[in-house]
Amino acid sequence: MKKYKGIWPVVPTIFDEVGNLDLDGQKRTLDFLIDQNVDGACILANYSEQFSLSDDERRLLQKVCIEHTAGCIPLIVTISHFSTRIACERAKSAKKEGASIVMAMPPYHGALLKSTPQQIIDHFKEMGDVGIPIMLQDAPLSGVTLPVKLLAEMATSIEMLQLFKIESAGAAEKIHALLQIADDHITGPFDGEEGITLYADLVAGATGSMTSALIPDLIRPVITSYLCGNSTLAKDLYDKVLPIINHENRQCGFRATKEAMVEGGIIKSSYCRHPIEKLRPQARKLLIELLQLHNPAILTWGK
Amino acid sequence: MKKYKGIWPVVPTIFDEVGNLDLDGQKRTLDFLIDQNVDGACILANYSEQFSLSDDERRLLQKVCIEHTAGCIPLIVTISHFSTRIACERAKSAKKEGASIVMAMPPYHGALLKSTPQQIIDHFKEMGDVGIPIMLQDAPLSGVTLPVKLLAEMATSIEMLQLFKIESAGAAEKIHALLQIADDHITGPFDGEEGITLYADLVAGATGSMTSALIPDLIRPVITSYLCGNSTLAKDLYDKVLPIINHENRQCGFRATKEAMVEGGIIKSSYCRHPIEKLRPQARKLLIELLQLHNPAILTWGK
Repeated sequence: MKKYKGIWPVVPTIFDEVGNLDLDGQKRTLDFLIDQNVDGACILANYSEQFSLSDDERRLLQKVCIEHTAGCIPLIVTISHFSTRIACERAKSAKKEGASIVMAMPPYHGALLKSTPQQIIDHFKEMGDVGIPIMLQDAPLSGVTLPVKLLAEMATSIEMLQLFKIESAGAAEKIHALLQIADDHITGPFDGEEGITLYADLVAGATGSMTSALIPDLIRPVITSYLCGNSTLAKDLYDKVLPIINHENRQCGFRATKEAMVEGGIIKSSYCRHPIEKLRPQARKLLIELLQLHNPAILTWGK
Repeated sequence: MKKYKGIWPVVPTIFDEVGNLDLDGQKRTLDFLIDQNVDGACILANYSEQFSLSDDERRLLQKVCIEHTAGCIPLIVTISHFSTRIACERAKSAKKEGASIVMAMPPYHGALLKSTPQQIIDHFKEMGDVGIPIMLQDAPLSGVTLPVKLLAEMATSIEMLQLFKIESAGAAEKIHALLQIADDHITGPFDGEEGITLYADLVAGATGSMTSALIPDLIRPVITSYLCGNSTLAKDLYDKVLPIINHENRQCGFRATKEAMVEGGIIKSSYCRHPIEKLRPQARKLLIELLQLHNPAILTWGK
C-alpha cells in the first residue's frame, strides 16, 4: 500500500460579505474537515481561489491554517508560481511553518507562457532541493501538457517528488500508465477534480483523492472500501453520490462548497471575489436538494 | 491631436547575476530612457517579466522607479490581476505614490479563466473609481478576446479609461475601428509589441507606442515625423530599423533589451529568472550586429 492515501480535500478560502478574509470562518471550515476524519487537506489550491489572493493573504492563510490544524491533520500548501525562484521561496516558507507537503503546477502564465519539459524538470528539481515532499498537480488550468514519460522521469530522478495529483483529461489512463513505469517511486498517486473520475481512478491505481470539501464524509467510504478490497461497495457508494459530484463539477465549481457551508451554518458568507460570479439561484437550489437526499455533514455540522 | 502621444517604452526589470533585483541597474535603465527623450515609460509590464515577480518586489520597484523619475517623465504602472479587488488596490497604491497612468489587461488566469464582457466592464469600472487614468492593454497573453464594440463601450462609459494599448492580432484594423466609433473618448490610442506593427498602426490613428527600451532613440523619430505630417520620412526611418524590431520581436523577446544593455554597459547582468532561458548566443550575436549598423544609444550611453 502507498504511503499517502485517502481523502485530502481542498480547503476553500472564506471571505466575509465584502470580500475580506474571514479567519474565523476559515478555522471553522478546518474544524469541519477534521471532524470528517479526512486524511489531510490542501490550502491555496485553485478551488481555494488562489488566483484571487495577494501574496500577503497567502502568507496569512498559510500561517493560520497550519497553526490551527497542528497535530490534527497534515496540510498540503499550494505554491505554484511561474518563477521557479518564487515557487521555491514559497516551498521554504511552507516547510518552515510546518506544512507536510507542497503542491505545484508546472510554470505557466496566461494563455501563452507554458514551460517546456526541460524547464519543468529544472523547476521541480530546484523545488526538490528545499526538502519537503512535493505533489505535482497535473491540471488543465495551467495549459501545460505533461506527458507520462516526463512525470515518470521526474518521479525517478527527484527524490522529494513522489506525489502526483492527476486531474487532466484521461486521468485514469494517465495514473495507470504512470504507475506502470514508475510505481516504486510514487508514494501518492492521487486524482482531483472533485472526484468526478474517482472510481475509474481508484481502479487505475489511485490511492488518494483531492476532492472538494463538499461531501468528504460521503466520499471517504468510497475510497476506504475500495482500498480494503470491497470494490462492489465502493462502486455502489460512488454511484449514489455521483449526481452531487456531477452537479458540483459541471454547474457550480468551487462555489458549491461555500454555498453548502452557508446553508449548513459553518460559514457566514459564500462570497467569491469579482470577477467570479455568484452561483445562480437555480443551480444553488438543485445543489442543496441533491445534498439533502444524503444528509451530509456539511448541512448539519454547523447547526 | 491626442493628449497622449509619442514613445513610452517598457522598462525591463533588472536582476543581478543570481536573480535578485538590481536597483542600481534599474535606476540606470531609467536614466538611459530619460536621456532618450522618451515621452513616458511603463513598469511591471509583461516585458518587465511581471509574471516572475512577487508582490513585495512589485511594490519596491514601483516605489524606486516613481521616486527616481519624479519630475522627469510620467510613469505607467502595470497593475493586472485576476481579482478586481487586488487590481484596484494596486491602482490605489500606484496613484498614491505618484504614477501618472495604470495599465491593466482584463481578468485572466492560466489557460482557462477568461473574463466575460460584463465581468470586464465591471472590472474596469471599479478600477475607474480609483481616479487615475487607465490604459487598457489588449494583449494575446491574457487569452481574452476584446471586441471593438466592448472597448468602445468602456471608453464611452468609464471616464478614466481613455487609453488603449492594442497589440492583439490585427492591431491596425482594431485601432482604426475603435477610433471610428469612440474617437472623442480616447486620449491615447497606442500600440505595443516592440513596434512590430508601428507604421500601420500610425496610419490607422495610433498616436503613441509602447515599444521596448531597445531603440527608443531610433523609433521616436518615426512617430514624431509621422505625427508632424511627414509620413514619407516616417516610413523610411521605420523600414531602416524594422530588421532590428523583427529580430527582437520574433527571436529574442524581452531578453533583447537586457542583452543590449549589458553590451552597452548600462547594466551588469541580462539575467532572467527561470524558467526563462538565456538567449541563444547566435540570436544574441545577430541582435548586436543588427544594432551596430545603426549605432543606437543603448550601445554607447553606458560607456
